[in-house]
Amino acid sequence: MHPSLPESALDQIFRAARTHNGFAAEPVSDDTLRALHGLMKWGPTSANCSPARFVFIRSREAKEKLRPTLMPGNVDKTMAAPMTALIGRDLDFYQHLPRMFPHADAKSWFVGKEAFIAHTAMLNACLQAGYFIVAARALGLDCGPMSGFDAAMADAAFFAGTQIKSFMLVNLGHGEPSKLYPRGPRFDFDEVCRIE
Amino acid sequence: MHPSLPESALDQIFRAARTHNGFAAEPVSDDTLRALHGLMKWGPTSANCSPARFVFIRSREAKEKLRPTLMPGNVDKTMAAPMTALIGRDLDFYQHLPRMFPHADAKSWFVGKEAFIAHTAMLNACLQAGYFIVAARALGLDCGPMSGFDAAMADAAFFAGTQIKSFMLVNLGHGEPSKLYPRGPRFDFDEVCRIE
Repeated sequence: MHPSLPESALDQIFRAARTHNGFAAEPVSDDTLRALHGLMKWGPTSANCSPARFVFIRSREAKEKLRPTLMPGNVDKTMAAPMTALIGRDLDFYQHLPRMFPHADAKSWFVGKEAFIAHTAMLNACLQAGYFIVAARALGLDCGPMSGFDAAMADAAFFAGTQIKSFMLVNLGHGEPSKLYPRGPRFDFDEVCRIE
Repeated sequence: MHPSLPESALDQIFRAARTHNGFAAEPVSDDTLRALHGLMKWGPTSANCSPARFVFIRSREAKEKLRPTLMPGNVDKTMAAPMTALIGRDLDFYQHLPRMFPHADAKSWFVGKEAFIAHTAMLNACLQAGYFIVAARALGLDCGPMSGFDAAMADAAFFAGTQIKSFMLVNLGHGEPSKLYPRGPRFDFDEVCRIE
């Protein structure tokens, strides 16, 4: 049985963490990206299917490939961020199940079942995106997640020739508190939860 | 700028955390459930839409309502777990946007757009399910997440008369290490990530 993490840790990963719009210029290193993946990869997925795929967009050239996919309100902050992660879901995830879930013929659950493949890829890649955001914060990074971009254009620019479908962008770096917006409200427990 | 959480905290929420199949009998209190929601609710969602909805299934009567929805391999462990969270996505989430995202007419982005509503609800509720799992672990709970159940039957049993659609179950409690399965492998960084 584990104790709760200290209050300061709960603040860092949830209660005091904010969606950032501006970041310090300091780059996000390859080592930091590897540490981030090395944490988030352990989060659970259905049959260990792990369908999330990541492009870490840092160079000027790659940022310019991303630019035309962005909604107008997201352009300036994303072009200025030291790092932007593009997250996709791989609809071919089930091809890897003989390795990822060796104790059952899990691949056969999916072959030819397009709707089930699509649902499973989306569910689990979005779970993994949640792990990604918390893992980044746990490592001391700040995040600016966005779904306002043209996913089909991003797929053509970054995932051509694959079955990977983009669904989220996350700006990464060390946030500038002066550029935060006011925090939105949250639902109370009794509005969205019940105990039976 | 925040430092990384201590190694022991990274272990607890990611590296050493496991999907549990057996739990101690000790109940999960209402206070613990409120603390869990009080953390996970702060995770970011698109336009703060927060579409995840939760039923915490603890009583024998509620467990019996859940039983027929479970895949055979999930019945015994779920019926025995001290608590099972049923998580759904509310397709009516956009009705709350005037309160949740007051600085724009975000509700109008969704009205009449069924595919966009469905995509946004799924993306963000699954993100929130990821936050939920990490928040539970941060509070010292162990999780046993599952997607193997009949979601339509669970909707009829627990979300009748709403637009809430179930997509995940999470057993909660203090795990019994003796009932763990061997841990599955994970993808290496270079298999699922690239830096541009």
